[in-house]
Amino acid sequence: MNLPKIVRITEVGPRDGLQNESQNLATADKIALIRQLAAAGCKEIEITSFVHPKAIPNLADAAEVAAATADLPVTRFALIPNAMGYQRAHEACVDGITLVLSATDTHNRKNLNRSCQESINELAPLAARAKEDGLAARISISMVFGCPFEGNPGLDRILRLIDTMAYKGFGRIGLCDTIGIANPQQVFDWTSRIQREFSGLDLELHFHNTYGRGLANVMAGLEAGITRFDSCVGGLGGCPFAPGATGNVATEDLVSLLEESGVKTDLDVNSILAASDFLAGKLDKRLNSNIWQVHQAQRALATA
Amino acid sequence: MNLPKIVRITEVGPRDGLQNESQNLATADKIALIRQLAAAGCKEIEITSFVHPKAIPNLADAAEVAAATADLPVTRFALIPNAMGYQRAHEACVDGITLVLSATDTHNRKNLNRSCQESINELAPLAARAKEDGLAARISISMVFGCPFEGNPGLDRILRLIDTMAYKGFGRIGLCDTIGIANPQQVFDWTSRIQREFSGLDLELHFHNTYGRGLANVMAGLEAGITRFDSCVGGLGGCPFAPGATGNVATEDLVSLLEESGVKTDLDVNSILAASDFLAGKLDKRLNSNIWQVHQAQRALATA
Repeated sequence: MNLPKIVRITEVGPRDGLQNESQNLATADKIALIRQLAAAGCKEIEITSFVHPKAIPNLADAAEVAAATADLPVTRFALIPNAMGYQRAHEACVDGITLVLSATDTHNRKNLNRSCQESINELAPLAARAKEDGLAARISISMVFGCPFEGNPGLDRILRLIDTMAYKGFGRIGLCDTIGIANPQQVFDWTSRIQREFSGLDLELHFHNTYGRGLANVMAGLEAGITRFDSCVGGLGGCPFAPGATGNVATEDLVSLLEESGVKTDLDVNSILAASDFLAGKLDKRLNSNIWQVHQAQRALATA
Repeated sequence: MNLPKIVRITEVGPRDGLQNESQNLATADKIALIRQLAAAGCKEIEITSFVHPKAIPNLADAAEVAAATADLPVTRFALIPNAMGYQRAHEACVDGITLVLSATDTHNRKNLNRSCQESINELAPLAARAKEDGLAARISISMVFGCPFEGNPGLDRILRLIDTMAYKGFGRIGLCDTIGIANPQQVFDWTSRIQREFSGLDLELHFHNTYGRGLANVMAGLEAGITRFDSCVGGLGGCPFAPGATGNVATEDLVSLLEESGVKTDLDVNSILAASDFLAGKLDKRLNSNIWQVHQAQRALATA
């Protein structure tokens, strides 16, 4: 088992996590959360989304959140759906943009009302503008390992999609298991092949723990040599096709696993846990993070 | 990633799972559960424990459960703490025995009031009697990868322990991560080494999902060539040092992961899920199994 020595984690809690919560967090609390995550060692944080406020009301305070975190020594990413979103994000002085599309046409049409090819054509100029404007840019492909409508899209389709994206100038591409259905053998085989075919790309993986496989899939990606992973403080987030199911891989579970396996993350697990405690208090809910649950149980025992 | 083609799963729900539940299941329900598990394809089930009824009141009906499941085409294991337990189990006509000790003296003394060496000396004649009596026998070492009192026992200690056990005639040895603290790198390295040193042993792995690493650790064991795993319907069971934390690796999560990864289990995941539904109803609780939680969410959505 030959693991990389260092991985880079992009914290997506303030965006991917919070946008899925039924309860909204106050803007000041979002800012406090992002500052806690930065203090815990997060170097990249997806802080918000510049989608239309009507689409995701929870994130309507995007510009305010960006302005209040500009001093942090962090690359602050924001999700951008289109040119209008890019404009708003750029004016709000974020440091990076996350673009999104789906691996399957059915999901892309349901979600974004256009084909995958149309999305790529529309997003490519935004990635180019980001480069000109000195912003980091990444594009996340959702449903890579399985789609609720089309099932397994197949590696060939993903290879063609990445080929098109690489040709269009995308350099940092995220493979997202949005419904948590990937398995480790698939992750290992697919990411190994993709790296062989596209040696110049900066690949990252984004896993959900819907079926309990999140960390197993991370390990498979690591074994294939991937060194960038998304994760979400407290394991927030979910699966729109199984409301109530477990969400994103929890940052604290990921950091603890990696550090104990000898893989450096430069994140402090106890500080991440403190941020999760803060979130749990503000959202008044039990989090999905396994380590958070252990700590809760131990505290309950200590005060009993 | 070179995975074995077939694994053998020992279902430990009726023993390891139920003994940790605060609520007891009626004897008829335990029997019904075991029959459902057998119908789902389980070939080995740990059905109960012949410890003193005062120690685990939940399992005081051990003989009754054994008698009512004798017709099943299943190797029915029972946990045996000592010669008295062996006698009762043998009279109750179980098919196999599970013996237990800890990897660390501190935990063994707290749990069994003797040193590891004393446990081995005491249990070896029971394994020999099982052989004479035509019963299957396995011995499970708890806290192999970490102990709440002594921390990481170190691979050298585990190698010495296994050496002693092999010398005393134990042939099937379980390495149990009782508190769920193992990490995949450790599991891969340790089980690889143990197999190199003791090629004649039948090794099995038993993981808890306390820190969310259960399936990742299974994958690491598989990659090292281990083909026997314990798991627990519904993910019942827990960690005595973190009450409320996630329990054993759930059988349905394990089966689904393995089958989708191309590893045959001969278990039917939907039938296991049905057994979990039965358990959830009888225990009136939300189970830890991720797949069970997804199905619950989807059913709630369908009936909404």
